[in-house]
Amino acid sequence: MKITVMKNILNANQNKADEVRGVLAAKRVLMVNLIGSPGSGKTTLLEKTIAHCAGRFAIAVIEGDVATDRDARRLQPHNVPIVLINTDGACHLESISIQQALDTFDLDTIDIVFVENVGNLVCPAEFDIGEFGKVAVCSVTEGDDKPEKYPLLFREAKALVLNKIDLCEYTDFDMDAFTQSVTMLNGTIPQMHISCRREKGLDTWFAWLEETAGRVCRNP
Amino acid sequence: MKITVMKNILNANQNKADEVRGVLAAKRVLMVNLIGSPGSGKTTLLEKTIAHCAGRFAIAVIEGDVATDRDARRLQPHNVPIVLINTDGACHLESISIQQALDTFDLDTIDIVFVENVGNLVCPAEFDIGEFGKVAVCSVTEGDDKPEKYPLLFREAKALVLNKIDLCEYTDFDMDAFTQSVTMLNGTIPQMHISCRREKGLDTWFAWLEETAGRVCRNP
Repeated sequence: MKITVMKNILNANQNKADEVRGVLAAKRVLMVNLIGSPGSGKTTLLEKTIAHCAGRFAIAVIEGDVATDRDARRLQPHNVPIVLINTDGACHLESISIQQALDTFDLDTIDIVFVENVGNLVCPAEFDIGEFGKVAVCSVTEGDDKPEKYPLLFREAKALVLNKIDLCEYTDFDMDAFTQSVTMLNGTIPQMHISCRREKGLDTWFAWLEETAGRVCRNP
Repeated sequence: MKITVMKNILNANQNKADEVRGVLAAKRVLMVNLIGSPGSGKTTLLEKTIAHCAGRFAIAVIEGDVATDRDARRLQPHNVPIVLINTDGACHLESISIQQALDTFDLDTIDIVFVENVGNLVCPAEFDIGEFGKVAVCSVTEGDDKPEKYPLLFREAKALVLNKIDLCEYTDFDMDAFTQSVTMLNGTIPQMHISCRREKGLDTWFAWLEETAGRVCRNP
């Protein structure tokens, strides 16, 4: 019973995700789905990325949050279109909400849509929202065993951003063990080591983004 | 449709949780449900706690994990009964699995059962598993805005352990803001600031545990 219903929910979500993907492809808009634990640095990464993209790409943001508009408010000074989806307790975003959010944007004027998913390493990885790709955002303070323990996201992601490398020296984080376990799950995934706070390594992330936008967008 | 089914699942879970709570109360066993993000330090807290409890309380552990037996293996040297529940992708533990796990223990010989829930700040907070209380485990590296952004756990928890305070000076974590937002959600919750790695502040956690066990257990 439970399994059948879950299957129906996933099927409905998948159909809607495919519709969303079709619209974005027709409009040549790149949609990136940022997924990571609470506090891994998704919003800070977005702040740095939006600032970097100013004058290069037209950005829009869909903010997913269980409660509050804190993250959306943090992004407001950047003056890009933002839709906040408060899930009211739900642990992930689904494609129906993404479709409704995209409807509020003028997609003819947008190059990249960033979705900041609910802070959660488990559930958001299961739901296709019509994105071009999921990007896993982790931080060294979470420990090097996270890929092995939460494998789905690392298998699904098109890129991996490892944040807070400035704190590495104060932790037991084993970079080789981390890199190896990600590679075991997803051999081709680019792994970018950054510190948003110290603005280290961000150029590798920007380069990945620009290269990807170059393949997808109308006017990269 | 979806809502009705979710209600049925939650009702079934609640009924089973009440059964579990009845059994534990009759046996005078304290069950604590540790909930926190991936990498907040739940397993390390357990390691320190089991070591402290040796000779004081008879401990058993139920380990919830999406994949792998890493955490269960970490606890093995402590020589306490451990049941590993691999959820195979699911984002939280439910009371039916807890009941099955408890059935494998001889509850007449156990004082405290620790449940380490799946690393997730959202979903495990929604499910009563028959525990005496949920304990929220956070770390300063996740940021001071987590209570406000993920309020349910902080409302539900009977105690809050804030871990990794040794890293506080390397982050922008605002202790006053954190404490205030927890207090807004749950005025009576004890907030314990610790560093498992540096073994700081653990005595406040042990004191809470011993005081609680004193009220619940047969031979504290």
